[in-house]
Amino acid sequence: MEFKAKDIATLLHGVVEGDPEIGVNDVAKIEEGRAGTLAFLANPKYEPYIYSTRASIVLVDKTFVPAKPLSCTLIRVASAYEAFATLLQLYDSLQPRPTGIEQPSYIGEGVTLGKELYIGAFAYIGKGAKVGDHVQIYPHVYIGEGVEIGEHTVIYSGVHIYARCRVGASCILHSGAVIGADGFGFVPDGEGYKKIPQIGNVIIEDRVEIGANTCVDRATMGSTMIREGVKLDNLIQVAHNAVVGRNTVMAAQSGVAGSAKLGERCVIGGQAGVVGHLTLADGTHLTAQSGLSVNTKANAIMRGSPAFDVAKYQRCYVLFRRLPELYEQIKELDRRVKSLNQHSSKE
Amino acid sequence: MEFKAKDIATLLHGVVEGDPEIGVNDVAKIEEGRAGTLAFLANPKYEPYIYSTRASIVLVDKTFVPAKPLSCTLIRVASAYEAFATLLQLYDSLQPRPTGIEQPSYIGEGVTLGKELYIGAFAYIGKGAKVGDHVQIYPHVYIGEGVEIGEHTVIYSGVHIYARCRVGASCILHSGAVIGADGFGFVPDGEGYKKIPQIGNVIIEDRVEIGANTCVDRATMGSTMIREGVKLDNLIQVAHNAVVGRNTVMAAQSGVAGSAKLGERCVIGGQAGVVGHLTLADGTHLTAQSGLSVNTKANAIMRGSPAFDVAKYQRCYVLFRRLPELYEQIKELDRRVKSLNQHSSKE
Amino acid sequence: MEFKAKDIATLLHGVVEGDPEIGVNDVAKIEEGRAGTLAFLANPKYEPYIYSTRASIVLVDKTFVPAKPLSCTLIRVASAYEAFATLLQLYDSLQPRPTGIEQPSYIGEGVTLGKELYIGAFAYIGKGAKVGDHVQIYPHVYIGEGVEIGEHTVIYSGVHIYARCRVGASCILHSGAVIGADGFGFVPDGEGYKKIPQIGNVIIEDRVEIGANTCVDRATMGSTMIREGVKLDNLIQVAHNAVVGRNTVMAAQSGVAGSAKLGERCVIGGQAGVVGHLTLADGTHLTAQSGLSVNTKANAIMRGSPAFDVAKYQRCYVLFRRLPELYEQIKELDRRVKSLNQHSSKE
Repeated sequence: MEFKAKDIATLLHGVVEGDPEIGVNDVAKIEEGRAGTLAFLANPKYEPYIYSTRASIVLVDKTFVPAKPLSCTLIRVASAYEAFATLLQLYDSLQPRPTGIEQPSYIGEGVTLGKELYIGAFAYIGKGAKVGDHVQIYPHVYIGEGVEIGEHTVIYSGVHIYARCRVGASCILHSGAVIGADGFGFVPDGEGYKKIPQIGNVIIEDRVEIGANTCVDRATMGSTMIREGVKLDNLIQVAHNAVVGRNTVMAAQSGVAGSAKLGERCVIGGQAGVVGHLTLADGTHLTAQSGLSVNTKANAIMRGSPAFDVAKYQRCYVLFRRLPELYEQIKELDRRVKSLNQHSSKE
Repeated sequence: MEFKAKDIATLLHGVVEGDPEIGVNDVAKIEEGRAGTLAFLANPKYEPYIYSTRASIVLVDKTFVPAKPLSCTLIRVASAYEAFATLLQLYDSLQPRPTGIEQPSYIGEGVTLGKELYIGAFAYIGKGAKVGDHVQIYPHVYIGEGVEIGEHTVIYSGVHIYARCRVGASCILHSGAVIGADGFGFVPDGEGYKKIPQIGNVIIEDRVEIGANTCVDRATMGSTMIREGVKLDNLIQVAHNAVVGRNTVMAAQSGVAGSAKLGERCVIGGQAGVVGHLTLADGTHLTAQSGLSVNTKANAIMRGSPAFDVAKYQRCYVLFRRLPELYEQIKELDRRVKSLNQHSSKE
Repeated sequence: MEFKAKDIATLLHGVVEGDPEIGVNDVAKIEEGRAGTLAFLANPKYEPYIYSTRASIVLVDKTFVPAKPLSCTLIRVASAYEAFATLLQLYDSLQPRPTGIEQPSYIGEGVTLGKELYIGAFAYIGKGAKVGDHVQIYPHVYIGEGVEIGEHTVIYSGVHIYARCRVGASCILHSGAVIGADGFGFVPDGEGYKKIPQIGNVIIEDRVEIGANTCVDRATMGSTMIREGVKLDNLIQVAHNAVVGRNTVMAAQSGVAGSAKLGERCVIGGQAGVVGHLTLADGTHLTAQSGLSVNTKANAIMRGSPAFDVAKYQRCYVLFRRLPELYEQIKELDRRVKSLNQHSSKE
């Protein structure tokens, strides 16, 4: 399918600069553009490529001023990045979706299935589960007893959802994600440990995305909560009874310990960790590899392990890197003070 | 099913304070208690909730002295936390367990199956494997050739156990755990690497719990050992030929490199790592995000990356945070010494 | 099957010292050697065991000079470690491989299957996929639409490969690895986030090994690249559009953020992380738990979070550990300068 520059511009509320009739049938990175593709320029670092790209059309911010002549057609939009995301969504929405129930699959007693589902071969849907309309359940998915899945949710192959958990509408769960495994709860018992059964569940609200091999443990009692709009990357740990607030984003390999409450719009960097039972205010930002062990105020940016205010941390780390020099200064001061002392005692 | 305060007290060797006839049919967190539920108070931080909770019964330590009037019935026990764990276990033991062999499942030649098993649909049991009595094998579990599983062990959906590994009795393995994948062993070979086949296995002893998506690699030769009573949280890496000692506990996203030997009752914090070939004495505690690169003495508490004694680390980190101030002091000293020098040379 | 010392020596281009007719039928670690086994000594730390081992044959470097009498037969070779790896490979190659197509498995329309395959029960091969000769696909593997798998590749149980990804020849993918899940790409959209569809794929070249539960995300556009000979350990994150260069090795729980380009022969330590969009020169070494946020020069060794030159880091960390002492020195200097000042002002 080919799209013309003028039609794309209309769709994106943009303005064509160049040939309005030129057509594209694919998208490409600006540095890999070929004839018949559309690319975008958002990060100024990539500007040099626009002068040599072979892409037919490039989306640019309306403020873009070319420094050299261009051979591509431009479409100027408010935000090239957002406009490109919109186009990708359109492109994606045109891809065919799998439908129907492949065999063999296992559907337990009392399961309620919505309309226009896809259920892949070897998927397992436990007793009494409820699956909404337009849900896609890929092969090897395990849905435990009494689980509920909201409409338009996509569950990729090999996701495991333990009994009684709930997943909202329009969510995406990637392969290997484990929802509702037992929280890590033990009580010392002589020399060993006695398990504390975890009888709660996990509730995932609407429009949540859960990355590959990410784990969200079920609550001891009550629910571990993943609020509306949360985005979790791959290999993340969310422990029992934690709450991840609306539109919070966590990068890969980060973790949240038990009963921590993350506010809305928080950003947790890759490989960072949050100690249990903390309360993070809305908009808290924890940088990559940091470890948070204190409650935060709104929009705090925290760094270090244990973490504190990022600007202070930066200053401390700069001086950490200068410690050999500071050490020499201290030694030099010591020499000079000794010499002054001798001088002074000689007098 | 309803339980009366007096019966629960008898079961827990506790004493009722309030209405011995009041009944409950569920448990709840103290801050979420409703009529007909039983809650507990162990952490003093939660004491304020006991004065407003709507739970009918609250378990408390026998030493608890209320600061205000209470509307709930109390049961006083030696340890409210342990007593509550006991009740949860009782509650849990009353839940129905799945039984029987669902179809389609795959049971290879020469497999030995115990009594009263559950084998879920799409489970795969390789040639010659031995499965003990009362074992629960959920859907999508892979059990390789010659694997042995002890009685009363529960293996949740999507666990993968490679050939010839052994799992003890009364273990719990959570979804996505991988037991016995090849250890990471290569020998440089010109510009690339040649694989060292990993021909050993993994032995997991009794009463071990393995978290979701945790990996325990098989030994190059011999066995990677997870000793009796070990508890591993989610997303943990245990490399080839490591030994995790009895009743040791590892928090989520921590890792142990090849051939490290962890003693008994060690505690490894979240996202912490242990270098290969180390020996950790019994009771070693490694704090979260720390990296251990030295052998330890019994009950050592280690912090930092690389880690050293926690008390020393704390002092160093406090001063790290004060580095900008120390830097100013050094500059100030320098100024004063210069001024003294000038003074002294003028004389 | 028994092998004689003289035959093993011929195979390994080594020289027998002792009984050339002595036979072995198994391998063992030197500290666990039994009669009839072959062991090796490479790491001098293990030398004491050679004087007491009950192994019948021990491989040693040709330069090895025993300090005491030996009861085992030696085979002297250029590198005992490499020679032992060669033997393990031989041993391994003699093990039987599974073959045939087990039932039930799912093979979609238009799939192309090579010769002498193994396809385990409950494996799923999506429409139009191409699987090369001698490939082993274990149970519960998911191969998405249009995926290509090169010859002699082994895919263990529970690997998930999303649509249109490509895996080269002679690769090994361990259980739970997820190849081609969506990259983590969102654009802010009012208070929440709008997903950027990830329409690229993952290309894994030849002779790559991917560890258990490791994730390699698909590119937004174009391809996330895992070059020839790369070895990834368990629980690793490789984000969208990253490139991992030839023969690079990454240890467990490490991560590479989006669009980072790792050169050839890099070594990334356990739990280390690389920030997005960086370029790492060939031979870059990032130590365990470090976080790299700058581009590197060839063969740089980097440490810390954020990381800098390892030798400098070491010096800084030594002084970090001595901060309490430096602090005392500064206080002492302050006292002495005060005293000099008083002295000087008295004059």
